[in-house]
Amino acid sequence: MPILNKDMSLCISLSGRPSNLGTRFHNYLYDELGLNFIYKAFTTDDIEGAIRGVRALGIRGCSVSMPFKEAVIPLVDDLEESAAAIESVNTIVNDDGRLTASNTDYEAVAQLLAEHAVDPALPVLVRGSGGMAKAVVAAFHGSGFDDVTVVARNREAGTALASTYGYRWVESDPAPVEGVIVNVTPLGMDGPDAQTLAFGQAQVDAAHTVFDVVAFPAETPLIVAARAAGTPVITGAEVIALQAARQFERYTGVAITPEQVARASAFSRE
Amino acid sequence: MPILNKDMSLCISLSGRPSNLGTRFHNYLYDELGLNFIYKAFTTDDIEGAIRGVRALGIRGCSVSMPFKEAVIPLVDDLEESAAAIESVNTIVNDDGRLTASNTDYEAVAQLLAEHAVDPALPVLVRGSGGMAKAVVAAFHGSGFDDVTVVARNREAGTALASTYGYRWVESDPAPVEGVIVNVTPLGMDGPDAQTLAFGQAQVDAAHTVFDVVAFPAETPLIVAARAAGTPVITGAEVIALQAARQFERYTGVAITPEQVARASAFSRE
Repeated sequence: MPILNKDMSLCISLSGRPSNLGTRFHNYLYDELGLNFIYKAFTTDDIEGAIRGVRALGIRGCSVSMPFKEAVIPLVDDLEESAAAIESVNTIVNDDGRLTASNTDYEAVAQLLAEHAVDPALPVLVRGSGGMAKAVVAAFHGSGFDDVTVVARNREAGTALASTYGYRWVESDPAPVEGVIVNVTPLGMDGPDAQTLAFGQAQVDAAHTVFDVVAFPAETPLIVAARAAGTPVITGAEVIALQAARQFERYTGVAITPEQVARASAFSRE
Repeated sequence: MPILNKDMSLCISLSGRPSNLGTRFHNYLYDELGLNFIYKAFTTDDIEGAIRGVRALGIRGCSVSMPFKEAVIPLVDDLEESAAAIESVNTIVNDDGRLTASNTDYEAVAQLLAEHAVDPALPVLVRGSGGMAKAVVAAFHGSGFDDVTVVARNREAGTALASTYGYRWVESDPAPVEGVIVNVTPLGMDGPDAQTLAFGQAQVDAAHTVFDVVAFPAETPLIVAARAAGTPVITGAEVIALQAARQFERYTGVAITPEQVARASAFSRE
């Protein structure tokens, strides 16, 4: 039986619609590493009260998802560059009552671009202009990519995002590029758009790297098409696992291996 | 390994100096009964923020100990008679954001007097005038005892407590009574007063029932002396287990047997 004790550090998540992923990912690794921590997902209709509770109860870490990623900014003490640049927080660490916010989505995307050795000289198409697209585009910028086109039906959000970094915006149907194509829309995600390819076949065929931020399913139609074409891929499953690993390390102070991330990620999806 | 999940109900305690007792007691029974709950002790330097966090995070139950038993009163929505009568809360239940406070110490003492069939016609000496003494004296009053003497060095607190119910107050050295003697001071508790008898041998010898609210150790010098004299006893271990059982039932909606209380209580003390 689980022997919980009073000295355990509690980490939580706050989101509009909690999933079981974070709870399973973090607790799996706490157990494997023998850390005196527990993790549980929460939702709230009072984000200010929830963050006050994080302080008052000494909750060690707080993962933040939609729709609270911007709302928590005025509620923390320090904002790291990864969160400040995109005005979006997904991680809060509580050091004896001082709350520091960061964005591990940004960090994970930047790290994956480096690990997959994606050439910053390549042209990039990023489809999407929502909160996660802000993190992705900022990470491309931070990784030295100069030739980026934001593809977004939402003209206001698309032009705002692109112009932040001196990038281009197009509404739709970009010409194929011999570079990186990135999906940051719900296209291909489990649900009504599960069968929709985020980019056309000509774009997939031309691409050097296909990057799909959608994590469910792990193999989206876009990733399946890219693999069939023999094109290198970066998947949303990698993003979600890596950003969770970065959160884990911030909360616990313990670095974890890619193998541990893979095991915990697989467990979290069971 | 413990498989925690996002849907678990969280119950907590708030106290100045958390012990491991509640955490072990409640989690033991959650496991034995297969309930999707977890329990963890917390302290805080912001009781208002902590209770706001209870609401905002949907924390199901909150046990309250020193020094917060009075401070939480203005922070809840409803106060049950057990808490209102003594202006002291040890239990808060959160029903979809509505907080109801009660005092299971009061309830446990009243229930033990009934279970041990202590005759309300007997005279009673209660030594002590602190927060727990308020619960104990109120429970004697609620159980129909008319002849109660509060023994307390603190004249102000002692007379206030006694006069609330039309009882007598004496500063010290009460005459032995052929009735019930009750210790609600730290005398006999683990610590500097561990070897001190809360009542003299003559009082122990005269008593029909000896009741010691001190829970650590389970066998205080007073209880040891009473057992040696063949006098029926009620122990602090019974009080703490029964009050925790009442909390458990309020939080979970599940009634537990005396055997389950005994097993969880023994486990909590390991």
